[in-house]
Amino acid sequence: MTQDFDAQVVSLGLRLPPAPKPVATYVPAVQAGDLLFVSGVLPFCDGTLTCTGKLGRDLTVEQGYEAARVAVLNALAIVAGHAGTLNRVARVVKLVGHVASAEGFVQQPAVINGASDLLVRIFGDAGRHARAALGAAQLPLDAPVELELIVQLR
Amino acid sequence: MTQDFDAQVVSLGLRLPPAPKPVATYVPAVQAGDLLFVSGVLPFCDGTLTCTGKLGRDLTVEQGYEAARVAVLNALAIVAGHAGTLNRVARVVKLVGHVASAEGFVQQPAVINGASDLLVRIFGDAGRHARAALGAAQLPLDAPVELELIVQLR
Amino acid sequence: MTQDFDAQVVSLGLRLPPAPKPVATYVPAVQAGDLLFVSGVLPFCDGTLTCTGKLGRDLTVEQGYEAARVAVLNALAIVAGHAGTLNRVARVVKLVGHVASAEGFVQQPAVINGASDLLVRIFGDAGRHARAALGAAQLPLDAPVELELIVQLR
Repeated sequence: MTQDFDAQVVSLGLRLPPAPKPVATYVPAVQAGDLLFVSGVLPFCDGTLTCTGKLGRDLTVEQGYEAARVAVLNALAIVAGHAGTLNRVARVVKLVGHVASAEGFVQQPAVINGASDLLVRIFGDAGRHARAALGAAQLPLDAPVELELIVQLR
Repeated sequence: MTQDFDAQVVSLGLRLPPAPKPVATYVPAVQAGDLLFVSGVLPFCDGTLTCTGKLGRDLTVEQGYEAARVAVLNALAIVAGHAGTLNRVARVVKLVGHVASAEGFVQQPAVINGASDLLVRIFGDAGRHARAALGAAQLPLDAPVELELIVQLR
Repeated sequence: MTQDFDAQVVSLGLRLPPAPKPVATYVPAVQAGDLLFVSGVLPFCDGTLTCTGKLGRDLTVEQGYEAARVAVLNALAIVAGHAGTLNRVARVVKLVGHVASAEGFVQQPAVINGASDLLVRIFGDAGRHARAALGAAQLPLDAPVELELIVQLR
């Protein structure tokens, strides 16, 4: 696997969305030392959520998986926007995946795999991260998935 | 805007509550390197929660916004208690805002803006933080908002 | 209290479970600088969850406390598996405890005390951590508790 992570995104047939602009009093990411803390991201594509609703009621696991995949591209757009290139990523440190969950839905890990799998396809071993998958009561804008990411930059 | 953050709190007509004491086997904050990890804070004022219940059922967005504002003062009291002064804050790194959310409530960001807006009024650019806003099923003591904060100290 | 944390586990009549193996594209823990970010852990014992369901409906606070205690042993198994020994723990920095919560359950801190109390029994002052206790709508595999841990290694 190439170590050119920007090229790897392209070779997977993907493109990063435009890096989000600060919308309020918070910002897309803050770096402290070599750790970059990325703000919570939702599955936006071309300015709209690709889907809404809760897992276990409105959406299948497959749809949730795809939403997590879209959301993590938004997180990587923030990383690239901050660092100039994904090639400064030394390690994906931690992913917290929040899944809007209807009563009785307990397959949060299968949903968040959509983000985890893509991180490893792009970054290889540097993409193997610590992770927590959680079930939220609701998420902003009725999004099915929200991701928090910490990456280590070189 | 002044760089005297303690004075800025006063000039906004605010005061920090007394720094919470350790109540159990956990402590208000732990510093690792220059990062200070603050324990989850609730909207306490003079020892009682300013309001309880869920957004989308018991409380308006405006009430939630105000609760987030009160909660972040509790977090800053912990920071000041640990560091001796808010003037040692180099950067507010990350805020995670949990909003107790009734079915269908999806305006978590508007609630957590109560904390974010105040951080920037106090710290200026150093207060611009990465953020995630999430919808919890329930929070301790039926609080409407709980905040987690990471700040970088100088 | 001894500073031999491995021995302290034994003297408390406890044993760490086998360190979990990476199961997918994420890993049990990632170290960045001297901080070890541990993946979310559930109350597994001998490969099965010790209990399932929600607090406030299916389980008592006492059962939740015990589940939190079991879960934190899983987190410590990851720490020991990564570092070779618990004796490299300089400080337990942060614990986030997620409690699967039925409508109206607001005693999340009493549940997460099961983890916090054990950390201090094992590590003494080095085990006193920043903490947040939160109420989740659902957790993976219908677990009652999920814990996220950050420790500082020497």
